[in-house]
Amino acid sequence: VNRRIAPEAAHAFVVRLYEACRIPSAAARAVADHLVDASLAGLPSHGILRAPDYLDHVDAGLVDPHGEPVVVRDDGTRVLLDGARTFGQLAAARAADLVAVRAREHGLALVTVARAGHLGRIGAYVEQLADDGLLALAFCSVPTRYHNVAWYGTREGCLGTNPIAYAVPTAAEPVVADFSTSAVPEGRIRSLRNQALAAPPDVLCDADGRPTTDPAALYADPPGAIQPLGGAQGHKGSALGLLVEVFGTLLAGERVDDAERENNLTLLALVPPPGFEALATGLVEHVRSATPVDPTRRTMVPGEPEHRARAAATAVEIDPVTWDRLAARAAAHGVALPPVEA
Amino acid sequence: VNRRIAPEAAHAFVVRLYEACRIPSAAARAVADHLVDASLAGLPSHGILRAPDYLDHVDAGLVDPHGEPVVVRDDGTRVLLDGARTFGQLAAARAADLVAVRAREHGLALVTVARAGHLGRIGAYVEQLADDGLLALAFCSVPTRYHNVAWYGTREGCLGTNPIAYAVPTAAEPVVADFSTSAVPEGRIRSLRNQALAAPPDVLCDADGRPTTDPAALYADPPGAIQPLGGAQGHKGSALGLLVEVFGTLLAGERVDDAERENNLTLLALVPPPGFEALATGLVEHVRSATPVDPTRRTMVPGEPEHRARAAATAVEIDPVTWDRLAARAAAHGVALPPVEA
Repeated sequence: VNRRIAPEAAHAFVVRLYEACRIPSAAARAVADHLVDASLAGLPSHGILRAPDYLDHVDAGLVDPHGEPVVVRDDGTRVLLDGARTFGQLAAARAADLVAVRAREHGLALVTVARAGHLGRIGAYVEQLADDGLLALAFCSVPTRYHNVAWYGTREGCLGTNPIAYAVPTAAEPVVADFSTSAVPEGRIRSLRNQALAAPPDVLCDADGRPTTDPAALYADPPGAIQPLGGAQGHKGSALGLLVEVFGTLLAGERVDDAERENNLTLLALVPPPGFEALATGLVEHVRSATPVDPTRRTMVPGEPEHRARAAATAVEIDPVTWDRLAARAAAHGVALPPVEA
Repeated sequence: VNRRIAPEAAHAFVVRLYEACRIPSAAARAVADHLVDASLAGLPSHGILRAPDYLDHVDAGLVDPHGEPVVVRDDGTRVLLDGARTFGQLAAARAADLVAVRAREHGLALVTVARAGHLGRIGAYVEQLADDGLLALAFCSVPTRYHNVAWYGTREGCLGTNPIAYAVPTAAEPVVADFSTSAVPEGRIRSLRNQALAAPPDVLCDADGRPTTDPAALYADPPGAIQPLGGAQGHKGSALGLLVEVFGTLLAGERVDDAERENNLTLLALVPPPGFEALATGLVEHVRSATPVDPTRRTMVPGEPEHRARAAATAVEIDPVTWDRLAARAAAHGVALPPVEA
């Protein structure tokens, strides 16, 4: 059964646990902010589920919590940062700050950060840019060890789940879209496996290329693969995954099959033309006015479900596998577990 | 039954017919080049099928064959062109030429062209940019009268089929992806209706939001709607369609529901970093090495099927409805029909 924890208690616990694991306080808080927010926004696959993973990454030397991103190439409108293996949340914050400055200067800018830890919910970075009045687009590629998405019509993992995100400033909340270019994100399959639930049909194949609903097939030896977005139109999902590999990996000067590379993020930001926010607000209204097939459902724009979930959330839910991993870490470091709600 | 016409004969016929309809020769040739190439590339929905439509657009005053695109806003890295209702192929060529110049100057540039005729295969414009060594991305939005794609979970047409295209320079042929953000492009449904064939399941709904395989449902009164890309993951297709509306329509300063607007195209071009082509070539090899589930099929990258189709094509195929429309136009203007192959 999932544990329900008050948001402030969950946040404080993650910070204490990370500090006990000798993560600098600023980094611990940045990661906790990001993960608790994703859980509250109804995105468990990018929430607290990741907290023990990140500590494993530090232990394995994949993440250096003391890393400081550095600029390695700067052409004004296009900048490449070396993430220096720091937490993805810190590397991405640096990239977002920089692309905003350059977009204000040149009208349009692109920043790529390579060698970062797991980047979490990439919607968070474009949302930050839209809150600052910029139109933003993000492409995120992942290490080759996470190449678990089959190319359309093929068997083995070939690309990552390679999410795309974008955010659009409006007169109210920005539109924020953030989605994997695979049929499902890997975190959702892992969350289903942790809860012993079946995966939806048509999103997974086993190692022989046969469709399966068993989430464990993805973690078998040899592993199965997630299917690209689109079902019978999966060539489009594969094309989108490839686009992310081009913008995320290749613009960083890295080879797709380089086993040493880590997570990459490319942010594109644009100063919108005069009058843009009113037009974007009109576009949101246009979509929201569409008649739902199911009259009990509300028609929503991207980012609206997360915005509503966040406003309504009173607790963070933690699945049993994640809870046990956090409890083991907490016990090893003498950190008290947060109170569990009834 | 479809008519098979030698490519040169089909091209010459389109040029003669357009000239007879008082289209300037340069425009007639540019349109014929584009449509014959799309037909040869195995993309009938963007090929000769469109030739009679474009003449209808001229007759209806939607297209001005004498229009000349003009710059209406220029921020260096970002330019807005008024397409002046000229043929989409001419407006897009102007946008592609301009974005290439600005990308060379600034490293990164974005050009939007509004008020253009139907833009045809938008892959053609990014392919041209990649042939010139640039990484290119395109977003194409359409007039509100072609809003025939339902928002995820809703009934009526809300957005256009809103294609995205991109092209990546490699050491050999560029990768060229070009796909609608709907389950299928409208032209494919029209082509199926013209041939009295059924549509695939799960791509169309009737006006009551019920799934149907009858392509005529899209043209009924009230009309049905095409579904967004993604099936059960259709929220991602809708998010992509919305992204295209933002980049295509809103960056042009136009309202999504403005009944007066025509076709818009935004091209983003980027000078790739040193060593990029070798990395892109490696990415193509990486994908091509994936094991097909069906061992009789070859694993291909985007653009490769069109490249192979073009190399193998010996004739243009014209469906019966399109043939009859062209024949009626030809008879009215005393233009000889091209010879039909056995």
